[in-house]
Order: sequence, then structure tokens, then C-alpha cells
Amino acid sequence: MVSKTVNIKDVAHLAQVSTATVSRYLHGELNRMTPATAQKVAAAIDKLNYVPNAAARQLITNTSKTIAVIVVNAADSFSTSLFKGICSVLEPEGYIPALLDTDSSQAKEKKLINSVGLSTYDGLILQPLGSDVATIKEEVRRQMPIITLDRNLDYSPWPQIISNNFDISQKAARYFYQQGFQDIIVLTSPTAIASTRQQRLAGLKSVYQQINLIEIDENHYDHHHIITELRQILKNSSKKTLIFGIKERWLLEFLPELISLGLLKDNNIQISGFADTQLVPAIWPGAKMINQHPWQMGKQAGIQILQLIKKKSDISPTTIIPANF
Amino acid sequence: MVSKTVNIKDVAHLAQVSTATVSRYLHGELNRMTPATAQKVAAAIDKLNYVPNAAARQLITNTSKTIAVIVVNAADSFSTSLFKGICSVLEPEGYIPALLDTDSSQAKEKKLINSVGLSTYDGLILQPLGSDVATIKEEVRRQMPIITLDRNLDYSPWPQIISNNFDISQKAARYFYQQGFQDIIVLTSPTAIASTRQQRLAGLKSVYQQINLIEIDENHYDHHHIITELRQILKNSSKKTLIFGIKERWLLEFLPELISLGLLKDNNIQISGFADTQLVPAIWPGAKMINQHPWQMGKQAGIQILQLIKKKSDISPTTIIPANF
Repeated sequence: MVSKTVNIKDVAHLAQVSTATVSRYLHGELNRMTPATAQKVAAAIDKLNYVPNAAARQLITNTSKTIAVIVVNAADSFSTSLFKGICSVLEPEGYIPALLDTDSSQAKEKKLINSVGLSTYDGLILQPLGSDVATIKEEVRRQMPIITLDRNLDYSPWPQIISNNFDISQKAARYFYQQGFQDIIVLTSPTAIASTRQQRLAGLKSVYQQINLIEIDENHYDHHHIITELRQILKNSSKKTLIFGIKERWLLEFLPELISLGLLKDNNIQISGFADTQLVPAIWPGAKMINQHPWQMGKQAGIQILQLIKKKSDISPTTIIPANF
Repeated sequence: MVSKTVNIKDVAHLAQVSTATVSRYLHGELNRMTPATAQKVAAAIDKLNYVPNAAARQLITNTSKTIAVIVVNAADSFSTSLFKGICSVLEPEGYIPALLDTDSSQAKEKKLINSVGLSTYDGLILQPLGSDVATIKEEVRRQMPIITLDRNLDYSPWPQIISNNFDISQKAARYFYQQGFQDIIVLTSPTAIASTRQQRLAGLKSVYQQINLIEIDENHYDHHHIITELRQILKNSSKKTLIFGIKERWLLEFLPELISLGLLKDNNIQISGFADTQLVPAIWPGAKMINQHPWQMGKQAGIQILQLIKKKSDISPTTIIPANF
């Protein structure tokens, strides 16, 4: 194991360059040296069979240049858009965002936060699933830059980036109610643990006194059973009905079958809800959706975590990126 | 900065437990100690204001329990399904998979591989975009467990998990050709750098001597221009035409508009291609798609990287997870 006894100074000495130059070479910054220098460093590394020890390097520099991004579900385009927005800011600054997936499981969320606290990440951007401030603090166990986004955290010590879930849901509900859609069916993932969904539902409830609520567990549900329930409600209603997806996924899953079953008669049915893509209007051209801006939210989170890392103190505790309807 | 001078031994000593017990506590393995022990450890940590140093810990244990997963595009459901399959195997074994996004950029891919080599990841699962074996070796710069998946790498020293892209494309092409679809339009991202796309196209070419190929750059393209091109081809063709998406995204983007423009007359047009979701048949009910199994591919990659970490040597150099048509 020759490599264990060789360090960066040995490489620098043999190549007759500074350790900073070797470090730049190892980081691929070849534009910051002449080709001849790069060749000398490469030859020295080869000759000494030098393998940089990442943990040792991080112990010295006290930075991993990696930011953990914990999202509620990596398969949701909302979560991946957040991540892309974060990347758009952090990568040009030399940071690597690493996405970790809660997979809609509170147990996994706790485990991931714990693991981030024990690892060498320089910061954490968290889309909370169900954890409150006390739980996050308990799991993370160390002082580190933290930004939360999408879900509101009460009494949070960390800056948060959220959307205007209540207001925009209320606006959409008013619009359809005034158009004569007096019945409403709401498709949602469970609302108990997610403040975002609660706020959206509250916005709808501020307009509609009665709501046909269909809560669907993301990991355990019976597609056919839900279709049957929808059919029942639609057949029993004599009024114009709004079908509202608090989460786009459920519209995408159930609309095609409702259409092919002939259950959506034009004029009597309208479709709305929160959209991360353009797919709902592709399936049902009359749909009028609420569009959030997860990429912008991610970008803002990236900007703010850099400010925290640079120990700037004038960061707004709450930043709202409004949705459109 | 009291915390800097305190280490895990001090905590263990004060709590009158072993350092292993403190370590278990820090990893949240509370089921492996009595509540009284956990309380003693917590009290000692509080009293000493102990903050575990992740880099120091990793230097001792020589493991981060984190596996890097580099995917070509975090916004593609194919990539996130790979990731979910990987998670399904690694998480129960105590490893955290971290997703890093190439974002369809060869420059970013090289940078990420370089960064993984310099960081404390225990292994790398790579969905290569355009890098060949020599480039990957040059960037990663250290011996580490590596598995590649989805894209075939020539002369690879690392086990790879791939699909049967040529065979399944050929099978689909033959099916439609025999049904009388003599013209074909192919929608694809650029094929020059991606072996997967090349193999799919080759499978089609083995049946169709002439192909209307529309190559679309993922980051720079003009939606309207492509619609115009599609309209032109469809209007000029008098034969039954197959529209084939080498990538599902392009069918999802352009089909709705082609439908609403009235360009897809039943019987004369058929839709096929590679699908990661059920959305194409939702938009065009007659579509007959090729379904790959990215979750299974990811799962297999997870199994094999664990075997590499455990230094097992009897791993198949190539594992094929076949698609369905």
C-alpha cells in the first residue's frame, strides 16, 4: 500500500510545483496552469501512485463543497425542479448539490437528516415532509447552514422559502364558484402531516362549505376503488362540479380513465389544481391550473444557503414565491 | 469553541459507556441500548457540548456509508426510477444513496465524476452520458467500487446493467412494418454521444431503410419549429406512418398539439416508442409502447455495488434487464 505513505507535498516536491498547483490539478482546474505543468503533476502522481485521501483533505479544509438537498419524493417533478433550481445557483459557485430522497416516509426523513448531520455536507436544504423544528434539531445534532422550502415550519430558526398556498387556492376556488361550480371533489395525498396540503385545503374550504375529499396514501392505494368512489360522487351530483387536484399526480392518474368512461361531460365538469407540468391541459384541454414555480423556489434557496455559508446575517426569515392562477 | 477539544472518548467516559455505544447513539440506533443508557449519553453530550466531527470520524472508519448516484437528468422519470431502485437495496443495508445530476451536460458529468473521486463516497453508480472508460478513470482518480448502468460502455472494467435496446426496437419496428406502417418519423435527443439512443435507432434502421429523423437538443430547441417540421412530413406522406419516440419526453411534448391540430388521423398514424410512464396511452389511447424497467435496473446496480464493496469477485460483467413490447 504505497499510496498510504505518500501525500500531496511529496507530489508537489517531485513535480517541482506548489501544493496549491497539485490541488488545482486534482480539482480539474487545468485552465489555471500550463499544459507542461499539468503533465509534470500527472507524471509525479503516477510515479508515486498517489491517491488523495478525501477525508483527510476535508479535515484540513473543513469543507466538502457538497450541499445536501433532502426532498419529499425524488419521483415528483416538483421536487426535481426544486433541485434543478438549487443546482443553477450552487454549481457556478463550485458547490455540488446532492439529492437525498425522503420517499414520502417520515422515518426515512429523520434518518436522512441524522445522516446529513453526521456527514461532511457544508449545508442542508430541506423540503420537510412531516418533521417539526424540534425533530430536525434533534436529528441534525450540529450547527450547520440550513434552509427549508415548500412546507411551512412553525417557529423556525432557519430561513424558509414557501409559496402562497392558501391565497392561490382561495383565488381559484372563488373563480370556479362564481362560474357556478357549486360542487367540488378534491384529490389529495394525506393532509395530516403536510402543512402545504393543509393550507391548500383551507383555501378551498374558505369558499366551499362542503367538500368531497378523497385522500390517497401515496404508497398504498387501490386505483379501482378510487375510480368507483369518483364515479359514485359524479353520478349523485346534479350540479356543475369542480375536480381539484391538490397534487397533480392524482389528476394524471385518474383523469384519463374518467374521460374514457364518459364521466366528464363538458360544461358540467371543470378541472383545476396545482400543476408542476403542462400535462393536465394536454389530457383535458379546458383545464385551468395553478402553476407554482419550484425552480425559482430552489434558486432562491440556493442563493440563501450561500449567504448562510458566507455568514451573512440579513436574510429574510420567510420568502414567498407566489404561484399563478 | 469548547466543542473542538472534546471527543467521543470524553463523552463515553462521562457517560460511563463504551465509545461504540456513543457512536450507536449518534447514528440514532436507540433500539440497541436501554432508554437509561441513551439518557446518560445525551446528558454527557449536552454537558460537554460535543459536536461529532464527520471528517474525523470518516478518517477513522474509512467509510461514509454514502453512495454517489450520477444520473443524466434528474428531471427524467427514467433517471429517478433508477435512483428509487438503487435506494430500495442500499437503504436497508444502512447506505445513503445521493443523487448527482449531470443535467445532460458532458462538462458537468466530468466535473461530478471528479468531485466524487475527491469526496468520501464509498462507491459510485453512474448512468454515463458521454464519457468513455478512459475519461471516467482519469476523472475519478482513485480505486473505488463503480457500477455503470443504462448506457453501454465499451471495454469497461466495471460491471454494467443495461437493457436490450437494439433487440426491442427491432421487434417493435418489425411489428409496425408488418402492420403496413411503411413510413416512420423518429423523435430523439441527439444520438451522437449516447450509445443507448444509437442502439435504439440501429434497431429501427434494421427494419426501416429510410427514417425521418428529428433530433432535438434538450437544452436548446424551438417547439414551434419542430411542430412545423412534423406537419410538413405528415402532409407529404401518403402512407401509413409510425411516429416513434426514442425518448418519451418528445412524444409528451408534441403529441397533444398534433392531436389538436387534427394531424393524427386514426388508422393512418400509430404511436410507439420508449416509455417511462403510462402517459402516452393516456393522451393517445391506441399507442403501443416499449416499457423498460429502470427500477429493476437500479435495484440490480444496488445489489452489485454492495457486492463490490464486500469485495466479492463473481459479478457478471454485463447484466441485461430486458424491456417489454
